[in-house]
This record gives sequence, C-alpha cells and structure tokens, in this order.
Amino acid sequence: MPNIEATYQDLLTQLRGAAVLGSCASVLGWDEQTYLPPAGADHRAEQLATLAGLTHERATSPRIGELLTELEQCGAIGEVTSAMAVNVREARHSYDRVTKLPRALVEELSRTTTLAQTAWVAARKKSDFAEFQPWLERMVGLKRQQAEALGYSGGVPYDALLDEFEPGASSREIAATFAPLRDELVKLVDSIQGSSRRPNVGLLTRRFPLEAQRRFAEAAAKQIGFDFEAGRLDVAPHPFCSGMGPGDCRLTTRYNEQHFPGAFFGVLHEAGHGLYEQGLDRAAFGSPMGEFVSLGIHESQSRLWENFVGRSQAFWQHFFVPAQQAFPDALAGVSPDDWYAAINDVRPSFIRVEADEVTYNLHIMLRFELEQPLISGDLKPADVPAVWNETFSRYFGLTPPDAARGCLQDIHWGAGLIGYFPTYSLGNMYAAQFYDAAQRDLGDLPAQFARGEFQPLLDWLRKNIHSRGKQLRAGELVQRVTGASLSHQALIAHLHRKFDPLFGLS
Amino acid sequence: MPNIEATYQDLLTQLRGAAVLGSCASVLGWDEQTYLPPAGADHRAEQLATLAGLTHERATSPRIGELLTELEQCGAIGEVTSAMAVNVREARHSYDRVTKLPRALVEELSRTTTLAQTAWVAARKKSDFAEFQPWLERMVGLKRQQAEALGYSGGVPYDALLDEFEPGASSREIAATFAPLRDELVKLVDSIQGSSRRPNVGLLTRRFPLEAQRRFAEAAAKQIGFDFEAGRLDVAPHPFCSGMGPGDCRLTTRYNEQHFPGAFFGVLHEAGHGLYEQGLDRAAFGSPMGEFVSLGIHESQSRLWENFVGRSQAFWQHFFVPAQQAFPDALAGVSPDDWYAAINDVRPSFIRVEADEVTYNLHIMLRFELEQPLISGDLKPADVPAVWNETFSRYFGLTPPDAARGCLQDIHWGAGLIGYFPTYSLGNMYAAQFYDAAQRDLGDLPAQFARGEFQPLLDWLRKNIHSRGKQLRAGELVQRVTGASLSHQALIAHLHRKFDPLFGLS
Repeated sequence: MPNIEATYQDLLTQLRGAAVLGSCASVLGWDEQTYLPPAGADHRAEQLATLAGLTHERATSPRIGELLTELEQCGAIGEVTSAMAVNVREARHSYDRVTKLPRALVEELSRTTTLAQTAWVAARKKSDFAEFQPWLERMVGLKRQQAEALGYSGGVPYDALLDEFEPGASSREIAATFAPLRDELVKLVDSIQGSSRRPNVGLLTRRFPLEAQRRFAEAAAKQIGFDFEAGRLDVAPHPFCSGMGPGDCRLTTRYNEQHFPGAFFGVLHEAGHGLYEQGLDRAAFGSPMGEFVSLGIHESQSRLWENFVGRSQAFWQHFFVPAQQAFPDALAGVSPDDWYAAINDVRPSFIRVEADEVTYNLHIMLRFELEQPLISGDLKPADVPAVWNETFSRYFGLTPPDAARGCLQDIHWGAGLIGYFPTYSLGNMYAAQFYDAAQRDLGDLPAQFARGEFQPLLDWLRKNIHSRGKQLRAGELVQRVTGASLSHQALIAHLHRKFDPLFGLS
Repeated sequence: MPNIEATYQDLLTQLRGAAVLGSCASVLGWDEQTYLPPAGADHRAEQLATLAGLTHERATSPRIGELLTELEQCGAIGEVTSAMAVNVREARHSYDRVTKLPRALVEELSRTTTLAQTAWVAARKKSDFAEFQPWLERMVGLKRQQAEALGYSGGVPYDALLDEFEPGASSREIAATFAPLRDELVKLVDSIQGSSRRPNVGLLTRRFPLEAQRRFAEAAAKQIGFDFEAGRLDVAPHPFCSGMGPGDCRLTTRYNEQHFPGAFFGVLHEAGHGLYEQGLDRAAFGSPMGEFVSLGIHESQSRLWENFVGRSQAFWQHFFVPAQQAFPDALAGVSPDDWYAAINDVRPSFIRVEADEVTYNLHIMLRFELEQPLISGDLKPADVPAVWNETFSRYFGLTPPDAARGCLQDIHWGAGLIGYFPTYSLGNMYAAQFYDAAQRDLGDLPAQFARGEFQPLLDWLRKNIHSRGKQLRAGELVQRVTGASLSHQALIAHLHRKFDPLFGLS
C-alpha cells in the first residue's frame, strides 16, 4: 500500500506541474483579450505557442503513462467514486487524448488561435468576412487534422472534437436531444409571436452610464457570491470567464451605454461560471477531482445564475430599487413589472449572446448544424456566410444585415472552439433540471431571492456539483443530483411557467 | 562558412526560445503588480517559480554551451563589434553566469520573490517592518547563496550580484566614482539650503484630479515618442517599466490627487525606459544584439527624459499651457516661472522616487552603503531600520517618521534586486554625459523642446544607444558616444547650470 500511495502522489505532482504551466497560458490568454497592445499580438502568439508546446510535453510525459498503468494494474484504487479512482480514470482519459496529438500540431493550433482571434477582432469590427475567411480555413484544416489524430468511432470526425468539451458525448445523441427541444421551442416562439402583448423594450436602450453599469453589475455579482478577493471583472471584446488557478478567476464583459442587458446579464452569466470555478476544491488543483465536469455542466451554472436567477421576477424584487438608484434617469417612473417584462422580451434577433431565453437555443442549433459539415468537409468556409444567412432565415424568419451580426459574431471558431456550441444548449437543459432539484431541496427559492439571499442556492450547488470535481461524468451527475437523466422537459416546463403568463398564453 | 552560419542560427534559436519563455514570466510579473486578485498570490508564486525553472533549464541547456564553444573555436566570427561576435561574447557571459546557479536556487528565488513582494505591499501599507523582516532575511540568505554560487573576485560577494545588473562593474570602482559626486552634491545641497529663495511648492499639492493626471501624463509620454500601440500605462503600487518582447512594453505609475509630480515625472521616467525598450532591434529579440546594455544605461535613458527633458524650463514652455487646460483649478494664475521653480525645488526628503535631482543620488548612496554589509553579513536584517534611520539622518539631517517613509519604501529588496540601486546613480551620470553629447550633435535642444519637438533627440538616442543592443559594454559605449569615460563632472556641471540661477547661487 505505501507503494501505491507514493505512485499516486507522484502522479498528482506530474499532473499539477502540467496544470500550473497551462495556467500560465491562461494568464497570457486573458491579457491578450483585455490589455495586450495591438503591436504585441505576434509576440503573444509565439509566447502562447511555446507554452502550449511545453504544457503538451508535460501532459504527455511517458512518466504519467507509466504511473497510470501502475495504478490501474494494482487493482487497489478503491471505490469508483473515490478520489484516487476518479483521478486515475480521468487522467487516463486526458492522457490518451493528448498523447495522440503531435506537438507540432498543438503548437500550430496555439499560434493560429492567437492570430486568428486578432484577425477576428479586426474583421468583426469592419464586418468583413473575407478578411477572416483564410483564418477560418486554416483553423478548420487544423481541427480536421486534430480529429484525425484523435480518432473517432461511427465515422464522425466532429465527435472527436466534441469530446474535448463534453467528454463522452456524440453528435448523434445531441441531435436526438435537440430535436424535441427544437419542436417545443418553435411552437413556443410562434405562440409568443402571435401574442398581442409586447413589453416596452425601449426601457433597456435608454442611457445607462458605463461606470454605473460597471458598479451595479459588480455589486450584483458580489451579492450572488462571486469573490472579488479571488477574482476580477474587466472589459474584453467577447465576454468570458477564465479560471487561472486557485484564488484567481477573471470575468470579462463589454459595456454599451445604450443597452443595459448586454453587460449586466453577461456579467451574471460569467459570474455563474466563476462561482463554479471558485467552488472547485483548491487543494485538488491540477487533478481531475479539482476540475469541472464538462462545458455543458459549466454552462448549466452560468445559465442558471443568468436566467433562472437573474431574469426572475424575484431577483428584481430585490434589485429593482438599487437599479433605480444606480440609473435614476433611465428608470424614473418605471414599474418593476414593466422592467421584468422588458428584460424577458422574446423575439427573433441576430446576436446569440443577447438572445432571450427562448430563442437562444435556436442560435445554438444553427451553429451545430453548420459545424458538423464544416468538419466533415461538406461545407466550405467560403460558403459559411451564405449558408449561415439561409439557415438563419429558416430558423428566425430574418436575414442578418451584415457579417458582424451574422457568422462573424462569435469568437469561437477563430479561437479553435469547434464542437463547443452544443454544450450551451446542454447547459440550458441541465440548468433547468438542477434548478428544479434545488427548489425541491431548498423550498421557495424565489422568496429567498426576493430577500437578496443567494447563499442557500450557492451552497447547494457547491455541495452537489462544484466540490465534486470530475467525480461523475455529466450524465451521471445529473442523474445523481436530480434523479433523472438529461431531458428537454424541465427546460420547456420552466419556459412555459415563465412566459405563458408574461405573454398571456393559455 | 555555411557550417558556422548554421551553428550560429542554431544558437540564436536556442537563445530566442529561452527569451520567449522568460517574457511569459514578465507578463505574469506585470499582472501580479497590476491586476492579480489578492487570493491568487500563492498560485502566482507557483506559476512564476515553474517558469523560472523552465527558463533556467533552457538558458543552461548544454546545447548552448556546445554551440558557443564551436563558434568561439572557429575563429571566424568577424569584427569585435559584428553582430555574431557580440552575440557570442555576451551569450557566453550570461551562459557562464546562469549555469553556475542550481535550478533549485533559481526556483526558490522566484518563489520567495513573489511572496516577499506581496508581504512588502502589506507591510508597507501598515508601515510594519517586523512583518517584512523574515522575508528580508530569507531574501538576503538566498542572495548570499547566489553570490557564492556565482563566485567573485576580490573577496566581495556583493560584486557577484552587481554584475547581474551592471556587467563588469565592481563596488570598489563605484565607490570611487560616488565619492567625488557625493562631495560635490553635499556642497550644492548646503548652498541651496542656505539660499533665501524658496519656490512655492504648495502649487504641486493642490487638487489634480486623477483622470486628468492620467490623460496629461499619457499625452506627454506619447509626445516624447512612447508608442501606445506597442505599450500601455497602468496603475501599480510601485512604478516600473517592463519590456515584454517586441511590440509590448508596459509602464506603471501611481497617482495621488494631492501631489502632481509623483505620477507625472514617474511616467516620464518610465517612458524613458520604455523608449529604450521600444528602440531595441525587434528582429534581434532574444539575442544580446536586441538587449539593453546594462541597468545603468537603462537608467540613463529614464533620467534623461525625466530630468534633462521633463524638468527643463524649455519643456514647460511647451507643456505649461496644456497643463493649465488640464488642471484649470490648480494652475489658475500660476506663472510658468513659478511652476518651473516649484517642480525643481531641492530639499531633503524621505522618499527616493519623489526626490529632487540633487538629493536623489544621496538616497542611492545610502542604499549602497547598507546593501554591501547586508550581503557581507556585517549588517543583520533586523538592524536595518535603525541603521537606515541613523544613516539617513547623517546624510539628510532628518529622521524618517516611520518605516514606510524609511527602509520599507522600495520594492527592490523584496523583489530580490540587491545590487541594483547603484545603477541609478550611474544612470544619472551617464545621462548628463549623453545629454551633453546630443546637444553637441543636435544644436539647441531646449529650443526644440520649447517647440514640442522631441523626435531629434529620440532619433539620436535610437541611433547611438538603443539600436546597438549589447554591442558595447556601458563603459565603452559612453566613451564611444561622448568621447569621455564615466565621470561625475557632466552631472555636477548640469546641476550648477540649472540650480545656481534658480537659487541665486554665485
């Protein structure tokens, strides 16, 4: 037994070493999005490629393979959900994955990612797809190489990419879950479109001074539990949350003086991610027991805080008066009900990150529909704008007026995150299921929110999800915590409970 | 010949690899001082120690030693000042230096540096030396180990540390240059103290709103030539300039609404460093031909822009009207002459970075006087506050009222920068010599400044100093550019030219 313990500790040290190095790259990646001077982009690409190569070297060290084999063979690593069993199982999954990738490809992906994101920022500003197209081509080419290197079952290279973000998921299963969700959503959107009730969304585009927005959003993030002693909020062209290791989690947002919800709900969303990161076991940093389950589960946390909490009537029973104090001009004479209706307007629109709770998943399905043929080779990058617009108009009955409000709106493809989008809708479904379970365990959540109490919900999430690390895979976790497997039903039920009364639907 | 070229290119690639990795640590170091959440300090220490270890591994790679030996033996590396000869000579100097340091010591120094700086920030805030003392003890212990590992001639371990910052310098030579400088300075301070003219320094402590200070300082830095497309200015507890590689140079400062000169001249100072960094040959990044000569030469650039330019009468002939527009309340009714006199007041004071041009070097000599026995073991860290205060009162006729205004004011010792201070006074002397030479070559510099023209001076510095990298050692460079060797005389002459009229001295 002492031998096993020493081997296990050696494994943890190796894993931690790779994680520390990887976390250095997180700092440089965050800096690139927030404070890097434009002329520094080329050098940053070289720095990140160097770190990616070194991290890859550490993560693929033959020593890790030997230690894993030793531990697997000793047959004494305890219960399936013991820390040692989990760490060995999940470290094996990652190790087998990364050792399949040649270091040159990893470095090339890192370098291209950095440059493609810079190109994306410039192209999006000018709404010029042609400027971004060569980068998309390079990126798709590299991601296809990556899929081939990783291997895949069922003849679907896309699944190899998906596995990075949602371990064990397949595009077939996702498509099967998305189908009934889409049918229900389309029906609901139709009903809402047919309703005569239209909230006064003009409230949201009055003047909300930037500094007041920042203060108000920061105060709300703090109140739901985000720890600013161990985190920050900065401005970046694309909102994100980056966990850089114990005690350091960074959120970003972008402010628009004429649009309140963009930054505010963006901050709640990223803070939801941040609460998950801050709830991971610090002592387990670098090992699977200290890591998040999957991006779908990560997204369930952000969507839960953004939508189930932040867009609830109860939340604004607590926050509307502070909001009126923060924005006296914009909110003078506005009633809480009108505000609640305005922030929950449902209407087809162009930008995913500003979409309402109902149409949001249709944005995801569109991307899922395009990514698969991009990777299989059936869709050429050059054809993306046309196919995007055609698909968009089929889903939403609208045609994007330009690329910035169409296929150029997201950073993901430039950042190499192909296979990532579906996790957003998985997250929405998981969020609904977790919220129902929390409500079952904690009683009247809205009453708590109305009193500004968010700690019980956070504690529940910490206990049931955050502190568990990768103990369970996503599917097992939702089964264990909610008693049911992944399903669209909780989400659809939530949407009806909320939007039927708002739009007077029967 | 093709063989030599291939060997040389291989060397450059190796050096660049280590430099890229080192530049990643610069980003994390900058972030630590500017944006790192407090709870992230421990993890940051681990990150920086990991990077320091890896950079050390690369910089000490036996391959570099082999390549250097090959190139040294082929006897065909050209003129002493050819790029290849310089790169081989200086890479050998660094390689021999770093290979003497055990990796464990390098990592331990990095880790301790990060934690000691955090401790210093907290201790300085509370003005509590006892809180910092254990860190100073650890640091001095590690620096003594470092000196022993490096070796030194003449029985002076301090010289081994000095060599890191000012290659080839010795404490004996520095002491010999400082002695006549001190005599002249003490005489000048005495004369000024005896003068009945006292500028109205109350002008400087009126209310200067922070945001206006930031804008004004940034505009001035831009006008003297600092490229904000390739750099930034942020807030940090201690002002510094960090060159992170091609296209990325970061300045920091700290603002005080009640004290104009601190931030403004601090920014000019750091921008002076930044102009040097931005003037290095980008293509030569990672090799000695793309690196600065020494910290003394670096400091000559910052002091030249801060004092010889920024504190000149001509500078304010151009900038006083914009200053009045930026600070209409503070500067209403103030005359340019009164302003010029106020920013050039000379009086003994506690804080080095806010000291005037005349007393500044006395602050340096005090630190030089303490650092040598700290490293030799003749001064115990616990005795530093008492000895500091005693020496301070001998030099300045004043006793620091607390540790924050005494021995806790500088970040250097916590940051492991022992042997660094003397380079500040070397820089002041070099600055005076360079300024005289530029004036000789460019004609009436003050007339140019008064017209807001700083490009001729910058071009001159770029050509004669910045673009040369490490082609010449500091002593050779000053000889080549000015026709004379290092001396205190140009600085003393400058001070008399400037302060005799200001204080009515004969």
